[in-house]
Order: sequence, then structure tokens, then C-alpha cells
Amino acid sequence: MITQPALAVEAWTIHERELNLDVLAQTESVFALSNGHIGLRGNLDEGEPCGLPGTYLNALYELHPLPYPEGAYGYPESGQTIINVTDGKIIRLLVDDTPFDIRYGRLQSHERELDLREGVLRRTAKWISPTGRSVKVSSIRLVSFTQRAIAAISYEVEPLEDPVHIVVQSELVANEALPDAGTDPRAGTVSLAPLESEEHRVQNLRGLLIHHTRASRLRIGAAMDHLVEGPEGTTMEAESIPNIARVSVSVRLRPGERLRIIKFLAYGWSSRRSQSAIHDQLIAALTAARSTGWEGLLAEQRDFLHEFWKNAGIEIEGDAELQEAVRFALFHTLQACRRGEQHPIPAKGLTGPGYDGHTFWDTEIFVLPSVTLTVPSAAADALRWRHSTLPLARERARQLGLRGAAFPWRTIHGEECSSYWPAGTAAFHINADIAYAVAFYVACTDDRAFEQEVGLELLVETARLWHSLGFLDAHGQFRIDGVTGPDEYSALANNNVYTNLLAQQNLRAAAEAARRHPQVARALGVDADEMASWSEAAEKMLIPYDQDLQVTPQDDAFTSYKRWNFADTTPEQYPLFLHVPYFDLYRKQVVKQADLVLAMHLRGDAFSPEQKARNFAYYEPLTVRDSSLSAATQAVIAAEVGHLQLAYDYLAETAFLDLYDLAQNTCNGLHIASLLGTWTALVAGFGGLRLRGDSLAFAPRLPEGITRIAFHVVFRNRRIGVDITATEVRYALLEGEPLAVWHESENITLSTQEAVIRPTPRIQAGPRPKQPPGRAPLKRTARSLSNGTTEPPHHNS
Amino acid sequence: MITQPALAVEAWTIHERELNLDVLAQTESVFALSNGHIGLRGNLDEGEPCGLPGTYLNALYELHPLPYPEGAYGYPESGQTIINVTDGKIIRLLVDDTPFDIRYGRLQSHERELDLREGVLRRTAKWISPTGRSVKVSSIRLVSFTQRAIAAISYEVEPLEDPVHIVVQSELVANEALPDAGTDPRAGTVSLAPLESEEHRVQNLRGLLIHHTRASRLRIGAAMDHLVEGPEGTTMEAESIPNIARVSVSVRLRPGERLRIIKFLAYGWSSRRSQSAIHDQLIAALTAARSTGWEGLLAEQRDFLHEFWKNAGIEIEGDAELQEAVRFALFHTLQACRRGEQHPIPAKGLTGPGYDGHTFWDTEIFVLPSVTLTVPSAAADALRWRHSTLPLARERARQLGLRGAAFPWRTIHGEECSSYWPAGTAAFHINADIAYAVAFYVACTDDRAFEQEVGLELLVETARLWHSLGFLDAHGQFRIDGVTGPDEYSALANNNVYTNLLAQQNLRAAAEAARRHPQVARALGVDADEMASWSEAAEKMLIPYDQDLQVTPQDDAFTSYKRWNFADTTPEQYPLFLHVPYFDLYRKQVVKQADLVLAMHLRGDAFSPEQKARNFAYYEPLTVRDSSLSAATQAVIAAEVGHLQLAYDYLAETAFLDLYDLAQNTCNGLHIASLLGTWTALVAGFGGLRLRGDSLAFAPRLPEGITRIAFHVVFRNRRIGVDITATEVRYALLEGEPLAVWHESENITLSTQEAVIRPTPRIQAGPRPKQPPGRAPLKRTARSLSNGTTEPPHHNS
Repeated sequence: MITQPALAVEAWTIHERELNLDVLAQTESVFALSNGHIGLRGNLDEGEPCGLPGTYLNALYELHPLPYPEGAYGYPESGQTIINVTDGKIIRLLVDDTPFDIRYGRLQSHERELDLREGVLRRTAKWISPTGRSVKVSSIRLVSFTQRAIAAISYEVEPLEDPVHIVVQSELVANEALPDAGTDPRAGTVSLAPLESEEHRVQNLRGLLIHHTRASRLRIGAAMDHLVEGPEGTTMEAESIPNIARVSVSVRLRPGERLRIIKFLAYGWSSRRSQSAIHDQLIAALTAARSTGWEGLLAEQRDFLHEFWKNAGIEIEGDAELQEAVRFALFHTLQACRRGEQHPIPAKGLTGPGYDGHTFWDTEIFVLPSVTLTVPSAAADALRWRHSTLPLARERARQLGLRGAAFPWRTIHGEECSSYWPAGTAAFHINADIAYAVAFYVACTDDRAFEQEVGLELLVETARLWHSLGFLDAHGQFRIDGVTGPDEYSALANNNVYTNLLAQQNLRAAAEAARRHPQVARALGVDADEMASWSEAAEKMLIPYDQDLQVTPQDDAFTSYKRWNFADTTPEQYPLFLHVPYFDLYRKQVVKQADLVLAMHLRGDAFSPEQKARNFAYYEPLTVRDSSLSAATQAVIAAEVGHLQLAYDYLAETAFLDLYDLAQNTCNGLHIASLLGTWTALVAGFGGLRLRGDSLAFAPRLPEGITRIAFHVVFRNRRIGVDITATEVRYALLEGEPLAVWHESENITLSTQEAVIRPTPRIQAGPRPKQPPGRAPLKRTARSLSNGTTEPPHHNS
Repeated sequence: MITQPALAVEAWTIHERELNLDVLAQTESVFALSNGHIGLRGNLDEGEPCGLPGTYLNALYELHPLPYPEGAYGYPESGQTIINVTDGKIIRLLVDDTPFDIRYGRLQSHERELDLREGVLRRTAKWISPTGRSVKVSSIRLVSFTQRAIAAISYEVEPLEDPVHIVVQSELVANEALPDAGTDPRAGTVSLAPLESEEHRVQNLRGLLIHHTRASRLRIGAAMDHLVEGPEGTTMEAESIPNIARVSVSVRLRPGERLRIIKFLAYGWSSRRSQSAIHDQLIAALTAARSTGWEGLLAEQRDFLHEFWKNAGIEIEGDAELQEAVRFALFHTLQACRRGEQHPIPAKGLTGPGYDGHTFWDTEIFVLPSVTLTVPSAAADALRWRHSTLPLARERARQLGLRGAAFPWRTIHGEECSSYWPAGTAAFHINADIAYAVAFYVACTDDRAFEQEVGLELLVETARLWHSLGFLDAHGQFRIDGVTGPDEYSALANNNVYTNLLAQQNLRAAAEAARRHPQVARALGVDADEMASWSEAAEKMLIPYDQDLQVTPQDDAFTSYKRWNFADTTPEQYPLFLHVPYFDLYRKQVVKQADLVLAMHLRGDAFSPEQKARNFAYYEPLTVRDSSLSAATQAVIAAEVGHLQLAYDYLAETAFLDLYDLAQNTCNGLHIASLLGTWTALVAGFGGLRLRGDSLAFAPRLPEGITRIAFHVVFRNRRIGVDITATEVRYALLEGEPLAVWHESENITLSTQEAVIRPTPRIQAGPRPKQPPGRAPLKRTARSLSNGTTEPPHHNS
């Protein structure tokens, strides 16, 4: 563990100035490249040393049995896990017969730089071999946003003093050895050699491997081709065996000469297509990439990102580190989802094997709203993926004795993979979360075609689920008993307010959408009675309230429980789930992650400002943030109720989670939802952005220390700029037809003609609430980096 | 499945008149012999055919890992399971070289008879071999109540027509092949060859095998010796290999001649003693048994049972089948516990491998009260076993963050073996159940030495648990949140009334016992403040009440839940836990087994008669009895509130559970607690026996169809007879000093001088309550016998 990172703070790059082997696995996650289809961890070109080798293809998974000492009806019996596929990143180098390995010889310099505008990872190293030969190695790696199946690497080597004999081996390697995951059952199941060979081939400078997974029977292919620029005498050869394809380039270089290799990589997989179809697809992708060329790929990448930053631009003054962090977050979010194209967005993106590569509610609640406002088509794609899993979700609902669709708590392919039902199956809110994301997307884009084709059916089937899950009780209230809300330190609660409020919105949204698309609704079997029953359930939804405390309880019983004994809980006892049994967490007032507070963000309309302030003050001293999903939400509500410095502190915690490895498990992949929490805390927190009906509303404010926050959002085919300083807020319509938005309670109309300027509102707040002892927001000065593998349980993303 | 059993109804025997291979495994359980230390399933002498071979030693277990797809803090990682040890029952017979196997040749007759007064299993078979030789085989088997380490078999064979050459092989066989348990995770883990050989030896007619278990490292020895009576020319030889010791007797028999072999079997095991110590112990036991001789063992057994039936005598007129069933139940209970001697009483006794051989709360709540009133020293022994596990229970409490002792939900050795915590760890009532049994035992025996040495510490440590598990809330009520009561279709409930009432009694009993034994209490660290805190918690214990319904809810929220949709539940969907997910059972009004109704039995003082009647009427239509533990309790309360015919029906269900295989899993062992429920339904139900303070109280009544119930109980060194007919009740003190007891609200004094006679009280009840559709008490006419292996989950004993 070190206390200062080797990362320099720069506006548009993540720049590592020296290599620290202790944090290698963490930096492999930070420097991961992905386009949402292919993911390459930031492993060194030469493969070793390595924290955790990782090459992933979105939605490609292997199956493994889930063994229960005591099974029961409805338990999932098969798990799905992301696997490390054929590694095409590897370019080994021999300098006068000595392998280039930075653990030997002397590393004079080593720099890596993730360029957020160019979309490439650059590396330069100067190295003196154990036998005294010095070379400079430079590489640039990209995973193309524009050519979905393609990654590419430019690799250069030159001698610095003496002539050297250089051999470069560019490889495809399947079934790489992985480090021992230890005995921690939460590390996921890793098969030692998950891939079975079907084909291996080399021809000229081209190599190809095709494999399939053993249990899930998915076929996966990787291919490479090369351009070589070297002095006269450069020789090349190629060979393959079932798990390796290798192109070797050999040359004697004198100082001033250099060898440059452009490696084009193509990936593809399918559950259905034949070996020869995959083969041909890879060759075609390589042909297209070669035709574009290395410079062409770089230019496409740059143009693509230019367009992205135009829509997703965000500027912060007064905190350069935060400026860098929010761009880092947005860049990795883009990488996680851009070319997913109806595949899921895993909690870790494609940056590591954490959480088995599963997708959770993170996607719909913490990722898609921001994506909707910056890259709306990617949000639509992710929801189309959910929609494609509807048959499985319907089947699951039938299995559980429910109507409609019951989406899985965690999955890759669509089947429920959570083996702990109190925080899996019982966490039905995932269904309302999906409905929330659908309604949010439709409201922000007015994409009626999407609503008709995809959104309505998702809304209808989730509404049906809620209607069958709850019931009208003897007092005429619609109860939803025995479910688990977002806070995983509570479970099987009655009338969890978050769940009930989101289910209420789900029921209403379904009825409204059905009214907008009567024909499609009829085709889905929706009739007037059913719509009325949804409206009635929504109308009569039970939202408990504690009159004694004047507080909204998290659920019926929560405020009756004993408060957790925080005073006697030592710092080493966090995260609590590793040190105390669930039964005890469930029966006490202790909150793992924002639950009622999240409800106040997503359903702010259901609480008065005073109630929000009282609730926030009540839950702050109970919330331990043992989940990384909490800080951003607390920042949003802290900002709303006026605790601006506290909001800033939470913003910092979420912003630096991975860059500073605050959760000690960045090695297994980045926390995409938490990273994006940085954007949320800035835009929904200090910008106060909410949907009010179908309109955007803002309630801007700034904490001390930040002098300006400016951000862009896209909304209903418009691009809007909001520029907040301590004194004034400037709203500008950058593109599109005039639009009315809310500034606090004032409705203002924006047009491209002229910006609207308003004074930045002031807000009074009560005394700053206290967190549980030792659980105040993490400071960035407490930066620590580790290769530790502690990871929250699988259901706690 | 057959609809009529082959069992004849006889007052003192269980008599099987013909062999039905379809129900072999079930009858092996019914005909099991045990003394609480050694258990022999009723396997045929010759070993095959066989339903499930079984030879068990109480508390001898093997360990196996408990794999969790997603582990968490406090989960038990190691399971314990009963194992089939060295089988000494086997006596193989060859008739002119043809093995005696009733599946071949022709079985002319086959009878088995479990004699409840003699304590033996008799068998006679007449068989014609495939080659036409006819023989008569007779055996008598016993497991000695008086010589704890000893079982013995008398085996006779005689030709019926022609001379035959007979070979009898008497064996000890370790690591017998077991039938495949299938993929049902509830069948428990069975190791293929659990025993590793340490010693094998034969000498003359004596054989001995010593093994140890692989993981639990327990040493187990079995030895045999023989007396052979045969005509001249009888030859004998012996041999051994690591898993087999064999004594072979060969002779040519003419009609009128016979071969008789007396086999003495000795068993011993230890976690500490050496191989040679075990060896010598076995030889000593054999020597003693030989010295007693076969006839001597028979006589001791008869005398022992005579004494037992004197104390535990029960007579029923009007229902001969019930008369047999209750004796069968008492006999097997005696077998399960008599010579356990500070070992646990497993849920299945030593009659089969069901529930992995674990002990549950069944012992303290359903077995020990009856045992206390019939064989009090055996009850004391069982509680001494619990006491011996206190260090482990204290350690478990520490692990869970609690004070005092947290006893395991299921165990053999004392460690928690339940892998499903919502119905294991969270079922804390096990601790109050133990305290209940302690207090009940002390009240019924006035055994102050036991209280001082064993009882007080159990009461104190369980009271400490409750005090740390609950808390005084803002309203001054003592709440116990998030625990699971007896009904396993509810879990993690707040203020389960059963739990809170038994915890209340636990806290009070601890304070009272500490006052009676101040010195011991001080040594246990109990001071006046702690006693006061227990009393305060008891005093302020929250007992929820539903004012709207005028019903005691099972827990805070139970009566708010949706009622289970019984109308749409098909008969095939029972037991529900095999067909619906737990989350849904937990959030609905559906009761697996008596919970609030059990509280009304054990804490009748906490309810008015009217409240009992209302509560019973409320819970009957919700109670599906998917646990065999329920019917007897429902019988008791049905009788108390006056539904006498319903009580009779429930009595019949529990009485015939195993004889008629009503639960379809008798093959895995008998349900000791349910069997004994027959006694409870008769004595506590129709006898109305309760403790009122430290006195016995009766409230006798008879249903139509039973003309007389007479029973004995032992109480405070007295033997009391109660004789109930439709018109009068006769109370007699059969032995001991005069004693005051309650007849209804009248205090009467019994002496050996003269019986007290009172008219049998009449009681009015409302309309007979309805059970859920299809869940009325099972009729004995619906008798069905099967070898099925369906077994409720491990936590549902």
C-alpha cells in the first residue's frame, strides 16, 4: 500500500510517470481499453509481469454449477462467469536473446498515458537489459470505437546505444495461466483452461485461433495481422499450435534504426454461427482495418471522441483533480457501453473479472440516466438488451408464481445467477429500476419508436409483476411485503419505501404508455381493467411514515429496530458484512447504501423539501457506505438539502474510488456505476438536474472550493449547456429548437439566440449531519493503492 | 405405494405377516432396534435384499465441507453426518451352496415381529431354494438396554424335508455399499467408504474390526463372538481382511436337526482412546455378554421393559390400532434415548440416516417433556449432553456478536451444522426451548442437584443470549427482531410470539434458579443487576396483538400479510416448500407447522381460554402441516378448546405417521418427535396435562370413539395413574408421598390410600374449524407405504 499515486493530474490524460509493480493490477484496470464489445486490460505488451491478464468479449460467458449445501425451490443451479479469452495484446521482445522484462535489468523510465481525447493508451519505456543493452520501447494501443471488432497496436523498438539483435513475437494466446483466486468464495469460479481449440492457423503475417467454451458452447475467434517496418534484413516467420498463434520478426538494429510493427486484432464470437463463418468474419474485419490503416484508425477514434466530448463535456474550475476524474469516469463509461449493441453493461465494464462480469441494477439506476443525457443511443441499446431477455424474465416470474417479468438480480445472458436469494430474488426493485430507466430515456429523448417497440413491453411486464407481487389489504392499502430494497443491510422488509415508490412510478408509467400506444398495448393483452388495476395499485401504494420521529422509515419496521452499536464497532470491522452475520445487520438500524435517500433522489416529487432534510439528517448517522454505490446518491441529496461541503466530500469519494483504489478492489476492475457517480454528483447534485414531468429542471449551487461547474447534456434532440459559478448560472441552448426548462421554480425558455442568466440560488441547511464514527467521506489525501482482492459479495455491486 | 399395510394390529407387538419388498426400507425403520447408543436398522439377517443398510453409533459422525456459492460471515463451513458403521447384523446362509435370498426360490412364509415387552425383533421364514431345498430360518435380535455396548442375535436354521448342507457365515462388514442417494441435496452427504481400517482380527469364533473415520478422526470398533449348537460334524473357521471379519459354520443337517448360532456383538467408539483400549473394551463387553448368556440377556431386557411400562403405561379402549401405535411410539422413544448417556437424541433416533443424524429442537420441545414424565433420568442425560456442548454454544454466540450461549439449530457434536441461516441461525428459539426443557424437568423431578450442576448454567447462558438479542425500545418494550420462530414458512420476523413468550419464561426461570442457587450463580458471574435486567426484559417483553382481528398475530406483521391462495393450490403442490420459493411463503399468511398454537400449549398461562379458542380458529385455516411436528400440537390445543373430534383426527395423523408412512419418508428413519406426539396428544391433549407452577394440572376429556384413556406419569418421585372414561376421571397415586394436583380448577390431593374420582368435564366449542383445502388431518384409511426418499429440508425436522 502506498499513500501517493504515481499518477499526475492532467486535464485530458491519465498519466503514470513510473511503474509501481505493487499496484500493477489496479493500473491494469485504470488503463483498460474497451469499446463495449472488446475489453483489453492494461496489461503490459510483453505479458509479464502481470497483475491479472484480461481480454474480454461482452456477453461471452462460461457456465458453472452453483452448489448449495441445502437447496430449495427456485434457486438458480447454474452460474455464468466472464472469461479471459484469447489474448491478442501480447508482443514479446527479445533483446540480444534476453527477454524484455522490466523486473530484470534496469528500467530507466516507464510512462503510460491514457489519452481521453485520442482514445489510446501510450507507453514508453527505456530499459537496459541485464547484459547491458539499452533500448527504447514505445507502444500505442487502441480498441476501436468505429470498427467494433477491431483493436490495434503500434509497437516500436529502437536501440539507444549499441547495435542489438531484436526479436519481436506477436501472439494470440488462449487459456493463459491466471493467478490463484484464493479460497474466497466471492472471487468467482475460474476454469483453468476454459477454451477448447477448434482451429489454429497462420499465413504470412496473419494468425487465427478459434475456440469454444466447454459448457456454454460459445464459439470465439481471434485473429491478427501485421504491418512491419524495419531496416533491410528484417525477417519474419509464423507458426501456430492449438492455443498459440505467433508471428516472429527478427532484425539487427543499429542506433538510429527502429523496428515498428502495427498489429491489427480482430475478435468475434457467436452462439450459433459456424467455425467458418467466424473465421471469415475475422478475416473481413482485419481486411477492413488494414484498409483503414493505423493512422486512419487513430483519426476515426479521435473524431469519434470529439463528438462524444461535445455532448458530454464537463468543466470544473478550482479542482483540477476532480476535472480529470470526471473525464476519466465518462471515458470509461463510454468504453463500457458504446459498442455493446444490445449486450449488457457489466458492473465492471470490460475492465476486469470482478462480480463474475455480471450486470446488476447499477446499469439502469446509476449508469443509464447519465448515458441517456450524453450518449442516448447507447442507453437505448442497453435497454434493448434487457428487452431481449424478456422471455427469460417471464419464465422466471412463472417459476416464482408471479405474473409479468422478473428480471435477474445479476446475470450475463439473462438467467438469474444470484445464489443468495434474500439479496437476489427478493430484490425485486430491479424491475422497477428497469422501468425507471425506460421512462427516463423516453422522457429525455421523446423516442416514441423505442417506446412502442421496446419500452412499452418492459413497462407492461414489470407493472404486471408489481401488481401480482403486492395486494390491496383490508385497509385498502397496496402492500408489497417481504422484499429487499437497495440497502443490503436490510432484507425481506415490508413496504420498503424505495421499492414501493418506484413500483408506483412503474405502474403509472405502464398505464400512461399503454394509453399512448393503445394498439401495441392491446397486442400485449392489456385491457382497460388491467390499466385501471395498475392505476389503483399506484394510487393506494402504502408509503409508511413514522409519526413519532417525523421521518420516512426505510420500510414498515426499520425505525423500530435497535440502532447499530456504532460506538463499539472498530474500523477493522468495516465492511460490516465481512465481520458480522447478516441476521444481525438485517434487524438493526444500519444502512449499507443509500436506500430511502436514493428514493428521495429518484422520486423527489414524493417528499417535501423539509421532509427530505429531516430524512437525510436521520439516515446520515446510520449509513456506513459499505457499498461503493452510496456516496454519489448521498452527494446528490446533501446538495439538494444544502449541505454543500458534505456533498463535495461525497463527490470526491466517488470520483477517486478507482484512481485512488479507495475500495481496495480496483484490481478486479473499475466500478463503472461509482465512477459515473462523479458526473451524477456534479450534474444532479450541484446542477440539481431532475426531470419534472417531461421537462428538465435545475437547482444549481456550488460548494466552496469549486469556482465553476459547466456541463452539457443532450435532451430531446437539443444540446444544452449549463454554466454555474458562485454568483450566476448561465443556461445556453447550443443546438436545437427552443426549449422550456426549470430554474428552481421558474420556467425559462432557452433558445440558440441567447443564453439565460440567473443568480445562483442560496440555500440554508441545518447543522452538518454526522456519519457513523469513522465513516465520514473518504479523503483523497488518504489515497492508498493496493493489489488486494477483497471484494464485496456478489450481490453488492 | 400400497394402500393397506401388511402389519397386523396387536396390543404389544408390531407384527408383519408377509414381506413386501416395495416397503422394505420403511419396515427397516419400523423394525429398528436401538438402546440409544447402538442402532440396528431392521435389515434382513442375510444383508440382501436391503432397502438401506444401517448400523449406527450415537454421536459418531463424519465431517464434510459445506460449499456455498456465495459464503458470508458466520456460515458453518463443516457439516456433520451420521455414518453407517461396521455392520455386525449380517448372517449369511448357504443352503446346498445356494445363497438364502428371498428374491430367489420360493418364500413360503415370512413373518417379523417387534415385541414391545420383550424388546426383541423376531423373524421366521420358510423358504424353498431354487434347487428345491426347503429350510426354516428363525432369528431373534436384540440391542441390550442393560449392557450398553451389546447386541445379540439368535439364529437358527433347520431343514424341512430333505437333508441339506448348510453354511452360515456370520460377519462384521465395514464400508458396505449404500444405495445411490440421488441428486437430492437434502439427502445428506454420504462418503462412499467412510472408514479406514486400523485392525482386523479373528480368533476361534471371535472377530474384531477397528477403523477410524477420515475427517472427524473418530475410532470405532466392532467385535463378535459366537456360541454354536449343531449336530456332530459341525465345523467352524474364521478369517478377516481389513473390512470384513467372518466366522463360517458348516454342517450337514437332516430333518429334525438344527443349527443354532448365538452371535454376541459389541461396539465401541472414541475420539480419544487408543486402538488397544477400544480393542480391550470390546473384548470385555463380549466377555460380560457371554457370561450373561443369551437367555440372561433376554431376561434382563424383559425386566427392563417391565419397569419401563410400569412408569410409561398407557391404555386405550375403543381404538386398538391407536393402542398399538402409542406403545410403538413410546418403545421407539425409549430406544432413541435410554442409553444415550449424555449423547444427543437425533430426530430419527438411530433408525436411519435422515436429517444426517442431526438433533434439533425436537428433542427439548417434543421429546423431553414426555420423557421427563416417564423416564426422567433419560431426560436428564439428554440435557447433560446439551450442557456438555456449552463451550461450543458460547463460542458461537461470540461469533455472532451475542452474549451467553447460542445453541446450534442442528448438530451431532455441538457445532452449528445448518447451512441455511434464515431457518437455522435465526431460529434462536432453540435456546429458549432448551431452557423450557430444563425448567420442565426440574419442576417435574425437583432434581435440585441437576439444577445446580447443569440446569442453572443452561438457564443463565440462554437468558444472557436473550438479553443481548433483544432490547428495550423507545416505548419501553423489550423487542426481539429478525428471528425465525417454529413456523418455517415464516422467517426473520419481528417479535415472534412463540419466541418472545419462551424467552420471557427463560429469563424468568434463570432469575429464579439463580436466586435458588446464589453461590453457583455468583460463580457464573451473575449479580443482582444482571438478574434484575432479566426480570425487566421478561416483564417488558413485547407480545403483539391484533386489535382489529382480536387475534394474537404470529409476529408483528403476520396478520397484515396476504393470505396464501389456498384455493388455487393443487394437492400436488404440497409440501409447498418443494413447489414455491421461500420468499413467497415468508410474505404470506400460511403456516407450515404450529407456531402460535404451540405457544398456546407451552405458555398456556399467557392466553385466556377465549383467546385460545379465537387464535386456534384463526390459525387452523392457515396451517398446512408440511412438517410432521405440527399435528400433535394441533391435537393438544384442539382438545383444550373443545374440538375433540378434530383432536382425535390429529392424534391419528401423528400416531400413524410412520406405521403408515404418511410422510413418505419413513424409509430414512422414524420421526421420533412425531411418534411421541401420540403420547402428547393423548396425555396433554385428552388428559389436559400441564404444569401449573410446580404442580401437575389435568383437564380430561374424551372424543367419541375412544371409550377410555388411562396413563401413568412419574412426577417428583411419585407414580400417578389417570384413568379417563366418558363419564369419570379416576386419579390414583400408585407410588410415593401424597401430592396435590389440579383437576381443572380444583386442587385435589392424591394419596396411595384412595383414588380420587371426578366426573369428566364437558366443554362447548364453536364450529369445527376448517383446514386449508386438502389439508385436513390424514386418515389412517389413506394408508400408503412407499420407499420414496422425499424428505423435508434439513432444517425442517
